[in-house]
Amino acid sequence: MIKVGIIGVTGYAGQQLLWLLEQHPEVEIRLLSSRSYADMQIQTVYPNFEGRLDHTLIKDEDFIARLEEIDLLFMALPHGLSQGFAHSAYEKGVKVIDLGADFRFEDLDTYEKWYKVPHKAPNLMPYTAYGMPELHRELIAQSHIVASPGCFPTTAILGVAPLIAGQWVETDLIVDSKSGTTGAGRDAKTSSLFCEVNENFKAYGVMSHRHTPEMEKELEKLTDENVDVLFTPHLLPVNRGILSTIYAAVKADMALTEAKAYEIYRAFYRDEPFIRIRKSLPELNAVRGTNFCDIAIRVDETRRKVIVVSAIDNLIKGAAGQAVQSMNILFKFPETLGLNMLSMYI
Amino acid sequence: MIKVGIIGVTGYAGQQLLWLLEQHPEVEIRLLSSRSYADMQIQTVYPNFEGRLDHTLIKDEDFIARLEEIDLLFMALPHGLSQGFAHSAYEKGVKVIDLGADFRFEDLDTYEKWYKVPHKAPNLMPYTAYGMPELHRELIAQSHIVASPGCFPTTAILGVAPLIAGQWVETDLIVDSKSGTTGAGRDAKTSSLFCEVNENFKAYGVMSHRHTPEMEKELEKLTDENVDVLFTPHLLPVNRGILSTIYAAVKADMALTEAKAYEIYRAFYRDEPFIRIRKSLPELNAVRGTNFCDIAIRVDETRRKVIVVSAIDNLIKGAAGQAVQSMNILFKFPETLGLNMLSMYI
Amino acid sequence: MIKVGIIGVTGYAGQQLLWLLEQHPEVEIRLLSSRSYADMQIQTVYPNFEGRLDHTLIKDEDFIARLEEIDLLFMALPHGLSQGFAHSAYEKGVKVIDLGADFRFEDLDTYEKWYKVPHKAPNLMPYTAYGMPELHRELIAQSHIVASPGCFPTTAILGVAPLIAGQWVETDLIVDSKSGTTGAGRDAKTSSLFCEVNENFKAYGVMSHRHTPEMEKELEKLTDENVDVLFTPHLLPVNRGILSTIYAAVKADMALTEAKAYEIYRAFYRDEPFIRIRKSLPELNAVRGTNFCDIAIRVDETRRKVIVVSAIDNLIKGAAGQAVQSMNILFKFPETLGLNMLSMYI
Amino acid sequence: MIKVGIIGVTGYAGQQLLWLLEQHPEVEIRLLSSRSYADMQIQTVYPNFEGRLDHTLIKDEDFIARLEEIDLLFMALPHGLSQGFAHSAYEKGVKVIDLGADFRFEDLDTYEKWYKVPHKAPNLMPYTAYGMPELHRELIAQSHIVASPGCFPTTAILGVAPLIAGQWVETDLIVDSKSGTTGAGRDAKTSSLFCEVNENFKAYGVMSHRHTPEMEKELEKLTDENVDVLFTPHLLPVNRGILSTIYAAVKADMALTEAKAYEIYRAFYRDEPFIRIRKSLPELNAVRGTNFCDIAIRVDETRRKVIVVSAIDNLIKGAAGQAVQSMNILFKFPETLGLNMLSMYI
Repeated sequence: MIKVGIIGVTGYAGQQLLWLLEQHPEVEIRLLSSRSYADMQIQTVYPNFEGRLDHTLIKDEDFIARLEEIDLLFMALPHGLSQGFAHSAYEKGVKVIDLGADFRFEDLDTYEKWYKVPHKAPNLMPYTAYGMPELHRELIAQSHIVASPGCFPTTAILGVAPLIAGQWVETDLIVDSKSGTTGAGRDAKTSSLFCEVNENFKAYGVMSHRHTPEMEKELEKLTDENVDVLFTPHLLPVNRGILSTIYAAVKADMALTEAKAYEIYRAFYRDEPFIRIRKSLPELNAVRGTNFCDIAIRVDETRRKVIVVSAIDNLIKGAAGQAVQSMNILFKFPETLGLNMLSMYI
Repeated sequence: MIKVGIIGVTGYAGQQLLWLLEQHPEVEIRLLSSRSYADMQIQTVYPNFEGRLDHTLIKDEDFIARLEEIDLLFMALPHGLSQGFAHSAYEKGVKVIDLGADFRFEDLDTYEKWYKVPHKAPNLMPYTAYGMPELHRELIAQSHIVASPGCFPTTAILGVAPLIAGQWVETDLIVDSKSGTTGAGRDAKTSSLFCEVNENFKAYGVMSHRHTPEMEKELEKLTDENVDVLFTPHLLPVNRGILSTIYAAVKADMALTEAKAYEIYRAFYRDEPFIRIRKSLPELNAVRGTNFCDIAIRVDETRRKVIVVSAIDNLIKGAAGQAVQSMNILFKFPETLGLNMLSMYI
Repeated sequence: MIKVGIIGVTGYAGQQLLWLLEQHPEVEIRLLSSRSYADMQIQTVYPNFEGRLDHTLIKDEDFIARLEEIDLLFMALPHGLSQGFAHSAYEKGVKVIDLGADFRFEDLDTYEKWYKVPHKAPNLMPYTAYGMPELHRELIAQSHIVASPGCFPTTAILGVAPLIAGQWVETDLIVDSKSGTTGAGRDAKTSSLFCEVNENFKAYGVMSHRHTPEMEKELEKLTDENVDVLFTPHLLPVNRGILSTIYAAVKADMALTEAKAYEIYRAFYRDEPFIRIRKSLPELNAVRGTNFCDIAIRVDETRRKVIVVSAIDNLIKGAAGQAVQSMNILFKFPETLGLNMLSMYI
Repeated sequence: MIKVGIIGVTGYAGQQLLWLLEQHPEVEIRLLSSRSYADMQIQTVYPNFEGRLDHTLIKDEDFIARLEEIDLLFMALPHGLSQGFAHSAYEKGVKVIDLGADFRFEDLDTYEKWYKVPHKAPNLMPYTAYGMPELHRELIAQSHIVASPGCFPTTAILGVAPLIAGQWVETDLIVDSKSGTTGAGRDAKTSSLFCEVNENFKAYGVMSHRHTPEMEKELEKLTDENVDVLFTPHLLPVNRGILSTIYAAVKADMALTEAKAYEIYRAFYRDEPFIRIRKSLPELNAVRGTNFCDIAIRVDETRRKVIVVSAIDNLIKGAAGQAVQSMNILFKFPETLGLNMLSMYI
């Protein structure tokens, strides 16, 4: 049984994390902070918790003052805000899992170039792991800080890792992603209003989204080639879920059939509890509310093209669930503990 | 051909009004103001107007300084803000149609009690008409200021006026209304975010909504009894439309069959171009994008109860369309001019 | 550990029941039947079960031939189809929980009048309980067959039971209900198509819905007066959830304040694990995916009217969850076992 | 004023066509057929037409027997059904506009290979034009039969025609399209049910969709190279609209900047009334209910990649509106007559 706290619990990722941790048999929820709703009770802000939780939300600074009460600090904050808190936690020996972008880049120049803020805790980077268990399980186990991956990179990296690692495809990839609106966060902005999103669909951040370098640097760890991702996110009028359609060209000297591709994926993800390699095409209904990443592959042998479709729940496998998976690794709990949810489909 | 201006054009009612006026053959759009988007062009804020309009949005005060350029001032503002502007317009001889609540109450005590602000232009009330053409066509024609009705009252008043006027039912009514989310306006607030409204449904303002006294005072004009409305609005996860389910008890001494009820409604609304008395139950799909109010009636002779279902597009018949209908009356255009839109159904 | 089977598992209620039972620690799923998808595997029809279940769906007759393999038979069928199967089960000593309407009416004349089919198993009625644990826990425990309540009656009966039982209100009630589209079932019919339901809203079955007599006869068990329900269901463009707005008049000789009403409800439902009496108004987001029924009460002392708002997930508390709750009672498991789900809110 | 008839008017494309024609000042609607709803009145099937149309739907064979009553036959039928009717019309001198696929392929081998039925009217192909006015205005004007384009090809062909015609990009293209659910038609099938589509998203027809060869053969008319399209459609939980994200590689010897690309597009579509070349990214809200195709272009000069985003209303520019545009050309009406609708945005 460990004691945990969440800074930024009232955002969409934060409340999902709380939902998971409330049901986790090895976790006691001790501290919750919220800048927007400090001094209110969590079940007032999120009435689903009525009858189950009644923690009072505290200010970030009051939270930090009580760091020694917890074994693990989760942060679900906009980028640039986590580094100071992580430093405090590190000094007190409190482990950290950050759902934001602040610790995702080993190369701080890339971070500073894309996120346009200076990094305030470069000294912590040696103790940090990129929290994608399927690729970095060992590193996570030994880390002090886990940088939980971005939602889009989760679909893209898990989606093509086997092909990149095996050098089956050219390394310039097209990732066409479609995300539910929780991905835009809970900030009250006009573009996230119901009437603006409902019945609508659009691309955004074309050729400029910050998740691009995260995809590239992680995929480059699997190969000795440069990886070049053309990434286009789109906003879906649904609450949850990301589905990415990934296009790659088979290398000139490789012979890849669809059957062979499935063999490669099944081998690469053998024994991974949260990766489901499927024959039928993934859909959001099958992953919503779960920690699964569903993947299907299609190969056009004539045109020598591969299409991979991968789908996750952006708030779970793309944020809070993947963070809990890292927590389980960090604290040597069974990796699926508290993450066995099955989608209700409808 | 008249010249018009709209104060508050970038709210949902304002932009709908602009959409109608842009297509109206007797209207030239001259002035548009917006506090949130002043100095931007309208087609930047609402890209649907691309290629058709390129007016620059101006500040309210600049708009007022140019009042003499227009024949008619529309206002689509939160309550309490229209009275001063209406006064300026009145002094310049510019007619006014107000989509807000500021001039809806002949009894200013009721206004001040429910809206909790003092009324700043009591002197204008004698020149004001409540802009529901089906009930007050003559008054509108002679007025200087038209107070366009609230969206919920439009469904409720049109829905039961024939029964109240004919003294067929008891005057304590239950109005259970369900409104699309445009009714909450375009303010960026958490409760209007896509993810909060989508897949959700709830009641709000139970026993306290400001449209209650508006329903009561208008229905009381049709009878010599007090009218008592128990009104419950609910928020629907759709953009547009209000459907009201209205419950009334047949008076002890009256014999009302369903056939008789239809006869009463058809007679009451004979020649009304925008009222459709239907046998089948109304649905939002059939009125969305139109100025129609669809009404069906069901009578349970044994229990002596009447259920009326009425449906409108809240932004059109419930706001901008009804305002244009009043404009047509005020300027002696054919009443349906520019309002012949038919729903696309799907 | 008990062995169960489900007849009609591929409808929306059936698959939700399967979802619950798959996660129930005392249940082994043995037999699943489907007329539409016989011979297919369940995870092909519902891909959310991929990796967790791989039962082959069998025909109803093959299921019945293997009845002795199970301890408990669930049925999720259209009305008129369950009675024969229940008879077979009764003869083999297999307990039955029916999610359909076939055993809900002690008075078979009422059943036959409203459902327009003869009842084929009147001899089983003495062994049958109406499966609403909050009102009939003892009967359920002793029954052989549980008739799980209809979705709308669940909201209505739980919503006003305390007021009717305490004789606080007149017994002619108005129940204005709004249901998600899973309530229409999984039949492929035009009126349930996405494009017909999305952005739409309408009433249906006005004054003629079969859930009316179910509400009346259950409420009459709580009082010595006739209960008269005017029930209007509406179709919401959401997948799940029912919210009912219930209107009642305070009896002439009773003094009911809102505070008193809350006291009455809290006492009536003391220790009920799935009833949440709330000050804030219920919303679908807080109950979706759960077995909760959330209830709030508003009293207008001047008008002497009460409004109760109750909300459930129609597939869980309104169908599969309530059935599992009855199963827990029937087999002496803790009543909340396998039903502790919390809504994800978003 | 011309007299028209529609075979297959109760499908989604058919009813949209009727909606447009009802408002067209040069059209009299004479004959309407429907296999599913023969003998019913149109306003019973589509209540939006209440008070405006009251045509009785007739059987296809009765329609054909009365062909001489009309000047123009529209057909909105599944593929394989239009050829016989077109033949009858041709013999009677009645012009034909077919919204289906039956006359889209000059190369009948391609048609038969992809649509898997023999073509029954090869003799009519010399009198047929592919009805995309922006590319084939002259041919349409001289044709007897117009084959109105598929919805996805409309976005793809209009989206990249300027780049292909100018030989700016390589001719192997990736077209990632997302379509509203009206694209699946009005057939009552489980996969189109509200609860299956709502909150869901998925790809379908990967590498096998019939619109692929239509895109290729039309783009090949613009160049002397083979065009190779990798086309992936996805199903959006919205009623209307297609947004396509198109990826192309700049040719090795070409220098293409984003500014240059805009210049190329503006020149190519100069004076086209329904093509809007936009700086901001297209969105469904801006084209819904209109005949516009909105297009934006992004160029990454470093990676030498172009992304084009194009958006239409699939039922209007992608079906009925484009057909009316061809009708206007065929009968020498102003090309925009009856097509000036502006989106309501919300």
